[in-house]
Amino acid sequence: MLGTGLIGGSVLRAAVAAGYAAWGYNRSETGVRAARADGFDVDGDIEAVLSRAAAADALVVVGVPMPALAPILSDVKQFAPDCPLTDVVSVKSPVAAAVREHELGARYVGGHPMAGTSESGWAASSSDLFQGAAWAIGVDAGTHADPWTRVARLALDCGAYLVPVVAAEHDRAVARISHLPHVLAEALAVAGAGGGDLALGLAAGSFRDGTRVAATAPDLVRAICEPNSAALLDALDDILRLLTAARDNLSATGSLGELVDAGYTERNRYDTLERWEITGIRPGDHNWLEELHDAGRRGGVLRTLD
Amino acid sequence: MLGTGLIGGSVLRAAVAAGYAAWGYNRSETGVRAARADGFDVDGDIEAVLSRAAAADALVVVGVPMPALAPILSDVKQFAPDCPLTDVVSVKSPVAAAVREHELGARYVGGHPMAGTSESGWAASSSDLFQGAAWAIGVDAGTHADPWTRVARLALDCGAYLVPVVAAEHDRAVARISHLPHVLAEALAVAGAGGGDLALGLAAGSFRDGTRVAATAPDLVRAICEPNSAALLDALDDILRLLTAARDNLSATGSLGELVDAGYTERNRYDTLERWEITGIRPGDHNWLEELHDAGRRGGVLRTLD
Repeated sequence: MLGTGLIGGSVLRAAVAAGYAAWGYNRSETGVRAARADGFDVDGDIEAVLSRAAAADALVVVGVPMPALAPILSDVKQFAPDCPLTDVVSVKSPVAAAVREHELGARYVGGHPMAGTSESGWAASSSDLFQGAAWAIGVDAGTHADPWTRVARLALDCGAYLVPVVAAEHDRAVARISHLPHVLAEALAVAGAGGGDLALGLAAGSFRDGTRVAATAPDLVRAICEPNSAALLDALDDILRLLTAARDNLSATGSLGELVDAGYTERNRYDTLERWEITGIRPGDHNWLEELHDAGRRGGVLRTLD
Repeated sequence: MLGTGLIGGSVLRAAVAAGYAAWGYNRSETGVRAARADGFDVDGDIEAVLSRAAAADALVVVGVPMPALAPILSDVKQFAPDCPLTDVVSVKSPVAAAVREHELGARYVGGHPMAGTSESGWAASSSDLFQGAAWAIGVDAGTHADPWTRVARLALDCGAYLVPVVAAEHDRAVARISHLPHVLAEALAVAGAGGGDLALGLAAGSFRDGTRVAATAPDLVRAICEPNSAALLDALDDILRLLTAARDNLSATGSLGELVDAGYTERNRYDTLERWEITGIRPGDHNWLEELHDAGRRGGVLRTLD
């Protein structure tokens, strides 16, 4: 596990809890010490950690923010180029591009567990962060069945279910349900605080929940959202259109217009979304990637590997 | 208690739990039956309920949505014009104006408990909804100490603390920390669902929390937000400016700009807000309303009455 912050640390904990022989790397001495104090095998020597991975044919999981990705991939290329490789980074196309640049594409499978808190670092990690969570897994053209199965097993063993998805579609989706919520939370925090201590003192559940993720470290928010700028711009344009229409309606007629009914309908759609189980597609079978891709698009998930 | 939905029903439950002799009115037969089945003294005959209040000099609490306010105030004027009167409606200036139109201003004190869920109706009510919550209480010019003290006692006995505020400032504040979050939640639900089942299937905490209040019944959302349109328009203009600036920055430079740091700072300001305790101001003392108003503006709250 390369990077043992909130997500990487939780993967390490969950893997160990599931019986894996797992170890990790963290670049900060503090991070290493914190993980070791909790009894985990974490080291600050990337060469040692990766050489050990190469010797054991371990699955290498990259869990660093986008800005730290390139140097880590250089290390992987140098010390463990033949290991199966995945990542838990918040966007997929930029990671896939960097992986290709480092000529690590052959054994790479993208991943993204959809879980988190507004805290960060090893101290916030937990072995059950992924219990019942979605874990996006890449089914891009050219993905090999072997590393894919390793990544799928890890995600399932961490307690998650799998959502098969290709990189570009993943990035467009998370722009709307993860990156946009982050930006809205920041804006709501600022607009609310514009009402002064009186407003903040009266704030209750709707403001608290609506701004929760604004408590995330700013550098992390930028590292999550900004590499996905094209898709995020589309999502921002959409919400600006919706809010402007509601604003203009309210100003002209005193009513928020269609937005309230539409929002209620879509939140209900989310609440009642059925995640149906994909069965009968075996990694490596003819057309397995296309079939998983299609199933994922239609709301299908994998809860076991046959 | 006139109206026994989520808020009114919770006030009735909390008052009874605190030892009050309390009874209620609900206009729907279903609502009356549900409350009675739980052992509460609720009736569908407004004349009987209010005549009993008049005979007992009971504190009358109005807990109906804005659109249902005027007929209820007509009934109060007719059957219990001399009772102390308060309300738990989400805006204060429009309620105060309606109260004045019905010539009920002399014994009126505005109120607004800052608590709720996305559910509604008696079934969602609970006696501990207001435990540890803020309860805005009117300190507008001309408020009389007697009914004010009755309202303050009720709120404290329901487990809340008091935030003294005048109507116009209350409405501007809640536009930012309650009505704006509702509108954003609706818009986020629509923008997220625009990504289809794949996006909704990947949605996790940030989307779930950011859209939570979009599950509120649409009629109720409109009844909460639309009577506060002037203040809500200001808040919407603010957030449209913030989001547009972030969007333009992202498009031009790849960075979300100042918004992320500002949002983090303001969410932290909210998390660490100190609600200091107002002491030494007695209802009816010289300048008590001005002093409470000033203290409330500066973040002061009342946790007891001397």
